[in-house]
Amino acid sequence: MRGLWLENRKLTYREDLPMPEPRAGEALLRIRLAGICATDLAMLQGYYPFTGVPGHEFVGEVVRAPGHPDWEGQRVVGEINVTCGHCPQCLAGRPTHCENRTVLGILGRDGVFAEYTTLPIANLLPVPENVPDEKAVFTEPLAAALEILQQIHVRPTDKVLIVGAGRLGQLIAWSLALTGAEVWAVVRHRRQRDLLAPYGVTCITAEEVPHWAMDVVVEATGSSAGLALAKEAVHPRGTLVLKSTYPGETRVHIASWVVDEVQLIGSRCGPFAPALRHLAAGRIDPRPLIDAQYPLAEGLTAFAHAARSGVFKVLLRP
Amino acid sequence: MRGLWLENRKLTYREDLPMPEPRAGEALLRIRLAGICATDLAMLQGYYPFTGVPGHEFVGEVVRAPGHPDWEGQRVVGEINVTCGHCPQCLAGRPTHCENRTVLGILGRDGVFAEYTTLPIANLLPVPENVPDEKAVFTEPLAAALEILQQIHVRPTDKVLIVGAGRLGQLIAWSLALTGAEVWAVVRHRRQRDLLAPYGVTCITAEEVPHWAMDVVVEATGSSAGLALAKEAVHPRGTLVLKSTYPGETRVHIASWVVDEVQLIGSRCGPFAPALRHLAAGRIDPRPLIDAQYPLAEGLTAFAHAARSGVFKVLLRP
Repeated sequence: MRGLWLENRKLTYREDLPMPEPRAGEALLRIRLAGICATDLAMLQGYYPFTGVPGHEFVGEVVRAPGHPDWEGQRVVGEINVTCGHCPQCLAGRPTHCENRTVLGILGRDGVFAEYTTLPIANLLPVPENVPDEKAVFTEPLAAALEILQQIHVRPTDKVLIVGAGRLGQLIAWSLALTGAEVWAVVRHRRQRDLLAPYGVTCITAEEVPHWAMDVVVEATGSSAGLALAKEAVHPRGTLVLKSTYPGETRVHIASWVVDEVQLIGSRCGPFAPALRHLAAGRIDPRPLIDAQYPLAEGLTAFAHAARSGVFKVLLRP
Repeated sequence: MRGLWLENRKLTYREDLPMPEPRAGEALLRIRLAGICATDLAMLQGYYPFTGVPGHEFVGEVVRAPGHPDWEGQRVVGEINVTCGHCPQCLAGRPTHCENRTVLGILGRDGVFAEYTTLPIANLLPVPENVPDEKAVFTEPLAAALEILQQIHVRPTDKVLIVGAGRLGQLIAWSLALTGAEVWAVVRHRRQRDLLAPYGVTCITAEEVPHWAMDVVVEATGSSAGLALAKEAVHPRGTLVLKSTYPGETRVHIASWVVDEVQLIGSRCGPFAPALRHLAAGRIDPRPLIDAQYPLAEGLTAFAHAARSGVFKVLLRP
């Protein structure tokens, strides 16, 4: 099988990968389209000690689903956390925090930057016919954006600021705008503004961030500078959502969080079904984020492209 | 007037302090009993650049209340934040975060380690007759403990861990135990255990802190080691209350908060009325925390005593 392989922080294109074999309850999927995200780029920096086929954003087609023939031929997206169903986290209704989980292309399970992958059928969701691959491939990051609304209550009268208007920041700003809240975003260049304009998001620069003005601030840069901006903008007793992974340790002035009684909440994977509903209804169209599409054989070029500053989304088409 | 004076991190006992003069809407209070807390000790280390009479935990008596003669002679406690009533924070219902606030003995306002102080009448609460001074002097720290229950919903079925069983940790553990929740505390010595026993709190050592076992963890040590313990104990999507001020910057691994979707919430000053209700009803009796009482003239000795390891509460009786 053709695919990309990550080992010791080194990514290679290979044509000799073994064909994945679905286990009980799993389906064999042919990847139609896959997306490169910040986590994939961070893995090359050693953020996770992963060895295998990377990649977790995809839309695919069920090739084989032993015992479940009705799934065969279906176009699907898939939840990336594969859970045990019996640990305390699963039983407490927090399956994405399963203590025995594997994660597609991230932890203990080969991912989607290849011709084929496998996932449990329980992880799959059929893609509505009117959602083309170029939209469906954004289901996973849009679900991650929607996780914010699973965790906190954003009121239609709230003022919300997104710090960071890149790949994920755009999806967050667009989906939070659907609440009716007044959504602001910190932008760095013209294309970020242009992408936010259709959703009625107010764009400001880092220098224009207002003091103590926001009910909710979403930090989507993963930098300590972004975190400091977010703290500046949120009002006392306001909510600061941490929507990015921070490499290593960060120096923070915790006393200011205590004195201002700020609530910080980490946010990771989110619900796929509402993401698909938004895509199917046309409330969110992520296609303007696509910068380029590459075949698998040009995967290393694709990664280099995705890592360039100002680039939104680079796709791989196996 | 006799009192303690803090200037350039140096505390002195003085007998020549000017008699405070109540402004419009304020009362002149005679201090009956005052408590030394961790914030007072931290101010000597330069935590706040305060110059004046320190101290904010007190029970007093209204000597003079121009225009409000009904208050004269009343035994009172007082909210320590003096607010403007017209800034965005006040108007948003967050008066303890008033942008123009002064804070008794902490920020722009002389405190209670003296014979007399002043506070707006709006800040005062009468002390019920059956609450002796030795209980009433704990109203402010007990209110700070109750702020946790103003901010988050602790369910009777929750498992709650308090990291730190000192002055404030005890009041937190006692008041959270009133919810019916299963309350645990990390203790370091026998007296901490003995004080927690009547409230049915389960005591463990730092080495015995269970992994991902708690719905709510309250960090009351103000140390990075305490914060790491708290993170270890709270389960994914659980709540970590930051109930202590952390000097300077702390190095934290924010990625673990994001991956585990932990909610952190800073917690400061709390509501006085419910604290007085608990004291009046006998649901909480803080007197076992009292280690010593000193006259003002021995205030420096009192501070040295309060700073000793394992000491709970030292009081000053002007």
